[in-house]
Amino acid sequence: MPPTHPNSRFFTFVAGETGPWRMVESRAIRGQALPPAPRLDLVNSALPALPPQAQWMLHGCVSHERYVTRAEKTALAAVQPPLGRAEATCAAMIPLTKNAAWWHLAQDERREILEARSSHIAIGMQYLPASARRLHHCRDWGEPFDFITWFEYAPADAPRFEALVQALRMTEEWQYVERETDIRLVRD
Amino acid sequence: MPPTHPNSRFFTFVAGETGPWRMVESRAIRGQALPPAPRLDLVNSALPALPPQAQWMLHGCVSHERYVTRAEKTALAAVQPPLGRAEATCAAMIPLTKNAAWWHLAQDERREILEARSSHIAIGMQYLPASARRLHHCRDWGEPFDFITWFEYAPADAPRFEALVQALRMTEEWQYVERETDIRLVRD
Repeated sequence: MPPTHPNSRFFTFVAGETGPWRMVESRAIRGQALPPAPRLDLVNSALPALPPQAQWMLHGCVSHERYVTRAEKTALAAVQPPLGRAEATCAAMIPLTKNAAWWHLAQDERREILEARSSHIAIGMQYLPASARRLHHCRDWGEPFDFITWFEYAPADAPRFEALVQALRMTEEWQYVERETDIRLVRD
Repeated sequence: MPPTHPNSRFFTFVAGETGPWRMVESRAIRGQALPPAPRLDLVNSALPALPPQAQWMLHGCVSHERYVTRAEKTALAAVQPPLGRAEATCAAMIPLTKNAAWWHLAQDERREILEARSSHIAIGMQYLPASARRLHHCRDWGEPFDFITWFEYAPADAPRFEALVQALRMTEEWQYVERETDIRLVRD
Protein backbone atom coordinates (compact mmCIF):
# COMPACT_ATOMS: atom_id res chain seq x y z
CA MET A 1 0.00 0.00 0.00
CA PRO A 2 1.43 3.39 -0.99
CA PRO A 3 1.05 6.62 0.98
CA THR A 4 -1.98 8.42 2.09
CA HIS A 5 -2.77 10.93 -0.61
CA PRO A 6 -1.83 11.34 -4.29
CA ASN A 7 1.27 13.43 -4.79
CA SER A 8 3.34 14.26 -7.86
CA ARG A 9 6.49 13.45 -5.87
CA PHE A 10 5.55 9.74 -5.66
CA PHE A 11 7.01 7.12 -7.99
CA THR A 12 6.71 3.36 -8.53
CA PHE A 13 9.39 1.27 -10.22
CA VAL A 14 7.64 -1.71 -11.83
CA ALA A 15 9.70 -4.65 -13.11
CA GLY A 16 7.94 -7.00 -15.51
CA GLU A 17 7.04 -7.46 -19.15
CA THR A 18 6.37 -3.84 -20.10
CA GLY A 19 7.86 -0.36 -19.86
CA PRO A 20 10.24 1.75 -21.95
CA TRP A 21 13.39 0.43 -20.25
CA ARG A 22 14.96 -2.94 -21.06
CA MET A 23 16.79 -4.41 -18.09
CA VAL A 24 20.28 -5.53 -19.10
CA GLU A 25 21.61 -6.42 -15.65
CA SER A 26 20.49 -6.74 -12.02
CA ARG A 27 23.48 -7.27 -9.77
CA ALA A 28 23.52 -7.47 -5.96
CA ILE A 29 26.41 -5.34 -4.71
CA ARG A 30 25.63 -6.16 -1.07
CA GLY A 31 22.84 -8.21 0.50
CA GLN A 32 19.92 -9.92 -1.17
CA ALA A 33 19.49 -9.43 -4.94
CA LEU A 34 16.41 -8.18 -6.78
CA PRO A 35 15.26 -10.66 -9.42
CA PRO A 36 15.96 -9.57 -12.99
CA ALA A 37 13.00 -8.90 -15.28
CA PRO A 38 12.71 -8.16 -18.99
CA ARG A 39 11.60 -4.54 -18.64
CA LEU A 40 11.07 -1.67 -16.20
CA ASP A 41 8.36 0.98 -16.05
CA LEU A 42 8.78 4.12 -13.98
CA VAL A 43 5.32 5.34 -12.98
CA ASN A 44 4.78 8.84 -11.53
CA SER A 45 2.38 7.75 -8.76
CA ALA A 46 2.36 5.34 -5.84
CA LEU A 47 0.68 2.23 -7.27
CA PRO A 48 -1.38 0.48 -4.56
CA ALA A 49 -0.92 -3.04 -5.93
CA LEU A 50 1.41 -4.92 -8.23
CA PRO A 51 0.09 -4.65 -11.81
CA PRO A 52 -0.85 -7.94 -13.54
CA GLN A 53 2.18 -9.75 -15.00
CA ALA A 54 4.60 -7.54 -13.05
CA GLN A 55 7.32 -9.31 -11.02
CA TRP A 56 8.06 -6.73 -8.35
CA MET A 57 7.66 -3.05 -7.59
CA LEU A 58 9.39 -0.53 -5.38
CA HIS A 59 8.04 2.85 -4.27
CA GLY A 60 9.84 6.10 -3.59
CA CYS A 61 9.22 9.77 -2.94
CA VAL A 62 11.16 12.79 -4.15
CA SER A 63 11.77 14.89 -1.05
CA HIS A 64 13.72 17.92 0.11
CA GLU A 65 17.50 17.63 0.25
CA ARG A 66 18.86 16.37 3.56
CA TYR A 67 22.55 17.35 3.33
CA VAL A 68 23.42 19.87 0.61
CA THR A 69 24.32 23.39 1.64
CA ARG A 70 23.17 26.47 -0.26
CA ALA A 71 26.56 26.75 -1.99
CA GLU A 72 26.42 23.10 -3.09
CA LYS A 73 22.79 23.37 -4.15
CA THR A 74 23.57 26.40 -6.32
CA ALA A 75 26.65 24.73 -7.83
CA LEU A 76 24.70 21.55 -8.58
CA ALA A 77 21.77 23.44 -10.11
CA ALA A 78 24.16 25.12 -12.56
CA VAL A 79 25.41 21.84 -14.03
CA GLN A 80 22.90 19.04 -13.43
CA PRO A 81 21.01 18.01 -16.56
CA PRO A 82 17.30 17.09 -16.61
CA LEU A 83 16.02 13.54 -16.96
CA GLY A 84 14.61 12.52 -20.34
CA ARG A 85 17.41 13.76 -22.60
CA ALA A 86 17.14 12.09 -26.03
CA GLU A 87 20.78 10.99 -26.00
CA ALA A 88 20.61 9.51 -22.47
CA THR A 89 19.48 6.02 -23.49
CA CYS A 90 21.24 4.27 -20.59
CA ALA A 91 19.89 4.23 -17.04
CA ALA A 92 20.88 2.87 -13.66
CA MET A 93 18.44 2.15 -10.85
CA ILE A 94 20.32 1.73 -7.57
CA PRO A 95 18.22 0.77 -4.53
CA LEU A 96 20.22 1.01 -1.31
CA THR A 97 19.73 0.52 2.44
CA LYS A 98 21.90 1.93 5.19
CA ASN A 99 22.34 0.17 8.53
CA ALA A 100 20.94 1.05 11.95
CA ALA A 101 24.26 2.64 13.01
CA TRP A 102 23.84 5.25 10.24
CA TRP A 103 20.30 6.12 11.24
CA HIS A 104 21.28 6.50 14.89
CA LEU A 105 23.88 9.14 14.04
CA ALA A 106 23.06 12.81 14.58
CA GLN A 107 22.71 15.17 11.59
CA ASP A 108 26.20 16.68 11.98
CA GLU A 109 27.77 13.21 12.18
CA ARG A 110 25.99 12.02 9.03
CA ARG A 111 26.97 15.19 7.16
CA GLU A 112 30.57 14.81 8.37
CA ILE A 113 30.79 11.25 7.03
CA LEU A 114 28.84 11.94 3.83
CA GLU A 115 30.76 15.00 2.70
CA ALA A 116 33.75 15.99 4.86
CA ARG A 117 35.09 12.41 4.94
CA SER A 118 33.50 10.80 1.85
CA SER A 119 33.09 13.75 -0.58
CA HIS A 120 29.78 12.31 -1.78
CA ILE A 121 28.55 15.61 -3.22
CA ALA A 122 31.97 16.62 -4.57
CA ILE A 123 32.46 13.24 -6.29
CA GLY A 124 29.01 13.51 -7.85
CA MET A 125 29.85 17.01 -9.13
CA GLN A 126 32.86 15.66 -11.04
CA TYR A 127 30.54 13.52 -13.17
CA LEU A 128 28.15 16.31 -14.12
CA PRO A 129 26.69 17.20 -16.54
CA ALA A 130 27.10 13.67 -17.99
CA SER A 131 24.59 11.88 -15.75
CA ALA A 132 21.12 13.09 -14.77
CA ARG A 133 20.00 11.94 -11.32
CA ARG A 134 16.86 11.75 -9.23
CA LEU A 135 16.87 10.53 -5.61
CA HIS A 136 13.79 8.78 -4.22
CA HIS A 137 13.34 8.32 -0.46
CA CYS A 138 11.71 5.05 0.68
CA ARG A 139 12.78 4.44 4.27
CA ASP A 140 9.81 6.18 5.87
CA TRP A 141 7.42 4.14 3.73
CA GLY A 142 8.70 0.94 5.31
CA GLU A 143 10.03 -0.22 1.93
CA PRO A 144 12.81 -2.83 1.65
CA PHE A 145 15.27 -0.08 0.64
CA ASP A 146 15.99 3.34 2.14
CA PHE A 147 16.68 5.07 -1.19
CA ILE A 148 16.45 4.51 -4.91
CA THR A 149 18.71 6.63 -7.07
CA TRP A 150 17.87 6.82 -10.76
CA PHE A 151 20.52 7.92 -13.25
CA GLU A 152 20.32 8.55 -17.01
CA TYR A 153 23.38 8.90 -19.22
CA ALA A 154 24.47 8.53 -22.84
CA PRO A 155 26.23 5.30 -23.92
CA ALA A 156 29.45 7.28 -24.49
CA ASP A 157 29.39 8.33 -20.83
CA ALA A 158 29.04 4.77 -19.48
CA PRO A 159 32.74 4.47 -18.50
CA ARG A 160 32.55 7.74 -16.57
CA PHE A 161 29.38 6.60 -14.86
CA GLU A 162 31.10 3.34 -13.81
CA ALA A 163 33.92 5.38 -12.32
CA LEU A 164 31.39 7.45 -10.34
CA VAL A 165 29.66 4.49 -8.71
CA GLN A 166 33.00 2.77 -8.02
CA ALA A 167 34.37 5.94 -6.38
CA LEU A 168 31.31 6.23 -4.14
CA ARG A 169 31.50 2.57 -3.12
CA MET A 170 35.07 3.11 -1.86
CA THR A 171 34.03 5.83 0.61
CA GLU A 172 33.61 5.65 4.38
CA GLU A 173 29.90 6.46 3.86
CA TRP A 174 29.45 3.18 1.97
CA GLN A 175 30.59 1.20 5.03
CA TYR A 176 27.10 1.99 6.35
CA VAL A 177 25.41 0.43 3.30
CA GLU A 178 24.01 -2.98 4.18
CA ARG A 179 22.07 -3.68 0.99
CA GLU A 180 22.61 -2.40 -2.54
CA THR A 181 21.48 -3.62 -5.94
CA ASP A 182 22.66 -2.15 -9.23
CA ILE A 183 20.21 -2.44 -12.10
CA ARG A 184 21.22 -1.27 -15.57
CA LEU A 185 18.77 -0.47 -18.32
CA VAL A 186 18.60 0.67 -21.93
CA ARG A 187 15.76 2.57 -23.55
CA ASP A 188 14.83 0.98 -26.85
CA MET B 1 -3.86 4.73 2.17
CA PRO B 2 -0.89 4.36 4.48
CA PRO B 3 2.59 3.26 3.46
CA THR B 4 3.80 0.16 1.80
CA HIS B 5 4.78 -2.22 4.57
CA PRO B 6 3.98 -2.54 8.29
CA ASN B 7 6.45 -0.74 10.49
CA SER B 8 6.56 -0.05 14.22
CA ARG B 9 7.46 3.58 13.45
CA PHE B 10 4.00 4.23 11.90
CA PHE B 11 1.16 5.88 13.80
CA THR B 12 -2.43 6.90 13.16
CA PHE B 13 -4.23 9.62 15.11
CA VAL B 14 -7.95 8.77 15.06
CA ALA B 15 -10.51 11.35 16.20
CA GLY B 16 -13.97 10.04 17.01
CA GLU B 17 -16.04 8.43 19.74
CA THR B 18 -13.37 6.19 21.27
CA GLY B 19 -9.84 6.24 22.60
CA PRO B 20 -8.12 6.99 25.92
CA TRP B 21 -7.79 10.73 25.30
CA ARG B 22 -10.68 13.19 25.70
CA MET B 23 -10.35 16.18 23.39
CA VAL B 24 -10.80 19.40 25.32
CA GLU B 25 -9.91 21.87 22.57
CA SER B 26 -9.08 22.01 18.85
CA ARG B 27 -7.89 25.44 17.88
CA ALA B 28 -6.58 26.58 14.48
CA ILE B 29 -3.45 28.65 15.07
CA ARG B 30 -2.97 29.27 11.35
CA GLY B 31 -4.93 28.03 8.33
CA GLN B 32 -7.85 25.64 8.21
CA ALA B 33 -9.00 24.06 11.48
CA LEU B 34 -9.40 20.35 12.26
CA PRO B 35 -12.94 19.55 13.47
CA PRO B 36 -13.16 18.79 17.20
CA ALA B 37 -14.24 15.30 18.23
CA PRO B 38 -15.10 13.75 21.60
CA ARG B 39 -12.03 11.49 21.84
CA LEU B 40 -8.70 10.59 20.25
CA ASP B 41 -7.02 7.23 19.78
CA LEU B 42 -3.34 6.96 18.96
CA VAL B 43 -2.77 3.72 17.06
CA ASN B 44 0.72 2.29 16.51
CA SER B 45 0.21 1.34 12.85
CA ALA B 46 -0.81 3.04 9.63
CA LEU B 47 -4.54 2.35 9.38
CA PRO B 48 -5.58 1.91 5.73
CA ALA B 49 -9.12 3.29 6.19
CA LEU B 50 -11.04 5.48 8.60
CA PRO B 51 -12.55 3.22 11.30
CA PRO B 52 -16.38 3.18 11.58
CA GLN B 53 -17.73 6.16 13.57
CA ALA B 54 -14.39 7.97 13.39
CA GLN B 55 -14.44 11.59 12.17
CA TRP B 56 -10.93 11.99 10.80
CA MET B 57 -7.49 10.44 10.96
CA LEU B 58 -3.94 11.61 10.36
CA HIS B 59 -0.89 9.43 9.79
CA GLY B 60 2.73 9.97 10.75
CA CYS B 61 6.05 8.19 10.93
CA VAL B 62 8.76 8.43 13.57
CA SER B 63 11.98 9.01 11.65
CA HIS B 64 15.62 9.90 12.20
CA GLU B 65 16.40 13.39 13.45
CA ARG B 66 16.93 15.97 10.74
CA TYR B 67 18.68 18.79 12.63
CA VAL B 68 20.09 17.87 16.05
CA THR B 69 23.85 17.60 16.44
CA ARG B 70 25.53 14.90 18.52
CA ALA B 71 25.99 17.34 21.43
CA GLU B 72 22.30 18.30 21.34
CA LYS B 73 21.17 14.69 20.94
CA THR B 74 23.22 13.63 23.98
CA ALA B 75 21.97 16.58 26.06
CA LEU B 76 18.35 15.86 25.10
CA ALA B 77 18.66 12.14 25.81
CA ALA B 78 19.83 12.95 29.36
CA VAL B 79 16.69 14.90 30.25
CA GLN B 80 13.79 13.89 28.01
CA PRO B 81 11.17 11.76 29.76
CA PRO B 82 9.36 8.84 28.11
CA LEU B 83 5.75 8.94 26.95
CA GLY B 84 3.18 7.18 29.12
CA ARG B 85 4.13 8.56 32.55
CA ALA B 86 1.26 8.02 34.99
CA GLU B 87 1.25 11.67 36.10
CA ALA B 88 1.26 13.04 32.52
CA THR B 89 -2.50 13.10 32.02
CA CYS B 90 -2.46 16.12 29.68
CA ALA B 91 -1.49 15.90 26.02
CA ALA B 92 -1.13 18.22 23.05
CA MET B 93 -1.31 17.11 19.43
CA ILE B 94 0.07 19.81 17.15
CA PRO B 95 -0.14 19.15 13.38
CA LEU B 96 1.84 21.71 11.40
CA THR B 97 2.72 22.48 7.78
CA LYS B 98 5.61 24.62 6.57
CA ASN B 99 5.47 26.57 3.33
CA ALA B 100 7.20 25.94 0.00
CA ALA B 101 9.88 28.54 0.79
CA TRP B 102 11.00 26.44 3.76
CA TRP B 103 11.23 23.24 1.73
CA HIS B 104 13.23 24.96 -0.99
CA LEU B 105 15.92 26.01 1.49
CA ALA B 106 19.16 24.02 1.69
CA GLN B 107 20.00 22.01 4.82
CA ASP B 108 22.40 24.62 6.25
CA GLU B 109 19.82 27.39 5.73
CA ARG B 110 17.09 25.41 7.51
CA ARG B 111 19.42 24.55 10.39
CA GLU B 112 20.50 28.22 10.62
CA ILE B 113 16.90 29.40 10.91
CA LEU B 114 15.76 26.55 13.17
CA GLU B 115 18.52 26.78 15.74
CA ALA B 116 21.02 29.63 15.27
CA ARG B 117 18.24 32.20 14.74
CA SER B 118 15.20 30.57 16.41
CA SER B 119 16.76 28.43 19.20
CA HIS B 120 14.15 25.74 18.58
CA ILE B 121 16.20 22.98 20.25
CA ALA B 122 17.47 25.25 23.06
CA ILE B 123 13.94 26.51 23.84
CA GLY B 124 12.65 22.94 23.96
CA MET B 125 15.47 21.98 26.34
CA GLN B 126 14.35 24.63 28.84
CA TYR B 127 11.03 22.82 29.25
CA LEU B 128 12.50 19.39 29.91
CA PRO B 129 11.95 17.08 31.72
CA ALA B 130 8.39 18.39 32.20
CA SER B 131 7.01 17.48 28.77
CA ALA B 132 7.55 14.23 26.88
CA ARG B 133 7.57 14.62 23.11
CA ARG B 134 7.38 12.48 19.98
CA LEU B 135 7.70 13.94 16.47
CA HIS B 136 5.88 12.27 13.56
CA HIS B 137 6.81 13.07 9.95
CA CYS B 138 3.94 13.18 7.44
CA ARG B 139 5.08 15.34 4.51
CA ASP B 140 6.43 12.48 2.42
CA TRP B 141 3.19 10.57 2.84
CA GLY B 142 1.31 13.37 1.09
CA GLU B 143 -0.67 14.05 4.25
CA PRO B 144 -2.36 17.42 4.88
CA PHE B 145 0.33 18.27 7.46
CA ASP B 146 4.13 18.01 7.33
CA PHE B 147 4.54 17.05 11.00
CA ILE B 148 2.54 16.06 14.05
CA THR B 149 4.17 16.66 17.41
CA TRP B 150 2.69 14.83 20.39
CA PHE B 151 3.40 16.08 23.92
CA GLU B 152 2.45 14.64 27.32
CA TYR B 153 2.72 16.61 30.57
CA ALA B 154 1.28 16.73 34.07
CA PRO B 155 -1.53 19.22 34.82
CA ALA B 156 0.82 21.16 37.10
CA ASP B 157 3.16 21.71 34.15
CA ALA B 158 0.46 23.10 31.86
CA PRO B 159 1.53 26.77 32.34
CA ARG B 160 5.12 25.87 31.47
CA PHE B 161 3.93 23.98 28.41
CA GLU B 162 1.91 27.02 27.27
CA ALA B 163 5.05 29.15 27.62
CA LEU B 164 6.96 26.65 25.45
CA VAL B 165 4.52 26.71 22.52
CA GLN B 166 4.16 30.48 22.75
CA ALA B 167 7.93 30.95 22.69
CA LEU B 168 8.28 28.73 19.60
CA ARG B 169 5.48 30.57 17.78
CA MET B 170 7.38 33.87 18.22
CA THR B 171 10.47 32.59 16.36
CA GLU B 172 11.66 33.30 12.84
CA GLU B 173 11.20 29.58 12.07
CA TRP B 174 7.45 29.92 12.68
CA GLN B 175 7.20 32.52 9.89
CA TYR B 176 7.47 29.50 7.57
CA VAL B 177 4.48 27.76 9.19
CA GLU B 178 1.44 28.07 6.95
CA ARG B 179 -0.93 25.77 8.81
CA GLU B 180 -1.01 24.78 12.48
CA THR B 181 -3.70 23.33 14.71
CA ASP B 182 -3.36 22.91 18.46
CA ILE B 183 -5.39 20.06 19.97
CA ARG B 184 -5.43 19.58 23.74
CA LEU B 185 -6.43 16.36 25.43
CA VAL B 186 -6.87 14.80 28.85
CA ARG B 187 -6.56 11.11 29.70
CA ASP B 188 -9.49 10.01 31.83
